[in-house]
Amino acid sequence: MKNKISLIHGDGGKATNNLINNLFLKYFNNTVLNELNDSALLNINNKKIAYTTDSFVISPIFFNGGDIGKLSICGTVNDLAVSGAKPMYLSSSFIIEEGFSIENLEIIVKSMAETCKKANVQIVAGDTKVVPKGGADGIFINTSGIGFIYDNVNIKASNAEIGDIIIVNGTLGDHGIEIMCERNNLKFYGNLSSDCAPLNFLVGEMLDICPYIHVIRDATRGGLAAVLNEIAEASNISIELEENFIPIKEEVNDACEILGVDPLYLANEGKLCCFVPEKYAYAVLCKMKQHPLGINASIIGKVVAEDSAKVYMNTFIGGKKIIDMPSGYALPRIC
Amino acid sequence: MKNKISLIHGDGGKATNNLINNLFLKYFNNTVLNELNDSALLNINNKKIAYTTDSFVISPIFFNGGDIGKLSICGTVNDLAVSGAKPMYLSSSFIIEEGFSIENLEIIVKSMAETCKKANVQIVAGDTKVVPKGGADGIFINTSGIGFIYDNVNIKASNAEIGDIIIVNGTLGDHGIEIMCERNNLKFYGNLSSDCAPLNFLVGEMLDICPYIHVIRDATRGGLAAVLNEIAEASNISIELEENFIPIKEEVNDACEILGVDPLYLANEGKLCCFVPEKYAYAVLCKMKQHPLGINASIIGKVVAEDSAKVYMNTFIGGKKIIDMPSGYALPRIC
Repeated sequence: MKNKISLIHGDGGKATNNLINNLFLKYFNNTVLNELNDSALLNINNKKIAYTTDSFVISPIFFNGGDIGKLSICGTVNDLAVSGAKPMYLSSSFIIEEGFSIENLEIIVKSMAETCKKANVQIVAGDTKVVPKGGADGIFINTSGIGFIYDNVNIKASNAEIGDIIIVNGTLGDHGIEIMCERNNLKFYGNLSSDCAPLNFLVGEMLDICPYIHVIRDATRGGLAAVLNEIAEASNISIELEENFIPIKEEVNDACEILGVDPLYLANEGKLCCFVPEKYAYAVLCKMKQHPLGINASIIGKVVAEDSAKVYMNTFIGGKKIIDMPSGYALPRIC
Repeated sequence: MKNKISLIHGDGGKATNNLINNLFLKYFNNTVLNELNDSALLNINNKKIAYTTDSFVISPIFFNGGDIGKLSICGTVNDLAVSGAKPMYLSSSFIIEEGFSIENLEIIVKSMAETCKKANVQIVAGDTKVVPKGGADGIFINTSGIGFIYDNVNIKASNAEIGDIIIVNGTLGDHGIEIMCERNNLKFYGNLSSDCAPLNFLVGEMLDICPYIHVIRDATRGGLAAVLNEIAEASNISIELEENFIPIKEEVNDACEILGVDPLYLANEGKLCCFVPEKYAYAVLCKMKQHPLGINASIIGKVVAEDSAKVYMNTFIGGKKIIDMPSGYALPRIC
């Protein structure tokens, strides 16, 4: 199977990175793409632009807290936002299976429109393809997006510095566990729900109070674990987390224990982590907590000098646990 | 079946237009999108930008004259070019079925890179999703693109004027008939081959010699028939074609007769039509014929005052044939 694409190539972890480095970058090699940021950074007539693309293949297409339409807007809006950009223009492209319900398509399109309104972005270009029955599973949506980088902002995965405080805007794993349970028809007590949300206004307020934030990333596919490992790798630093600082909903934690999954590896669709110079950390945390999407914001750890472990966590019981890049932990069609 | 998506919703004809108007524009309504040009026209820091997206689901993925990778670059490059823009930056997003051959993926990615080089564009952003076996048929590719509009150029489907001369850059139907034959394992004498090619340098030279071209469109899904009907509709004019002026390869014509299809309705991937004020028509034609992708350029007709028939053709035998918008003529996965 080594010469075939497998599900782990799409999980956002080691295999995905290998595919990107050994295949895509080998041929598409250029200085902008090679940076591997959430968005490409371009300069158009002396205006700094962020540009990004994402395809959404989530199953099921409707779930607690959202649907594939809402997700397709949030995903691209958030990729632009965490690049330090104000999202402006989106494109949307649909691949639809013959026989798909037009009623459901309308629900999805309406949901996209509502999310665009909430995020104050416009869909300005589109495309629709239909494939015969069996050629695709229901509906796939691609969105790409253009944003304007805020002045005096310089956010990059490689900018983390020793001493930086790491903050997340709320509870982790909500999206991933909701999709796992929906897909497997599992019902737990409590209200599992995706955290799918556009983060651009939250990011705007964070940058407003502190343009010196070093890194912002949304913790989607591969979860917080993948994102932190990428940042540690790009910045040549290590990351020390405190397990009892990490916000996880009780019902998510319980479901994770029953299913044997780790919330740090589960996808989020409305969560970001940011790396802030220590002197600004308190101000940024306060600002985040004032925003509806940052009420549960928490400091979760800090940047330390490079160590044999790129990312590790001091556990409740006083141990030290290595948080590795996800590898072979494939949850397909999570976004 | 009225409440289900069917293949004709993806054929680029009436049903596609109804879906766009009654569903997508209903919710995504904004002044840029409502223009329904090949690309959205944006203004970024006083620079005029074209922005477009397209998903490619063609089957088979390899064919005479190209593959899904080459097509995915040409399609977006051409959408930008016919908007009067110099294509600059592309994004690419892959949806790959579990089990897809990595060797074939490499051939496709290499083909994309070679086509980018030929068209002088860069892929600056990307995404990869993997869906489980049976969730998609092989590989789908979305590309979006950003181009810089040439100075003093104003190309729009609604700009056609009475008296304009209509020119195509070469033979029609090559791509559509090649895909039909590949898919059905039909072998005809002669060399059927897709015309898949990036048209941006040809368009650049055309605009260089005549920035006053009113309309340029690439005749993809739905063929020349769909494009001419859209232009006639948008500009409130009618179009008179001369059948004996329309360049069609002999082998394409023969295959079309055997298969009972009309080359004017077949997709092209390296053909455009342009609407040129009469006084510039000869100069533009000469310039096109000097370019390798315009050797068979031909004047095919002209714009006349609005008539009951939007598009009609004076036939070989002296009759008048109405060239309607394609309707129910679904050739799925042609691009």
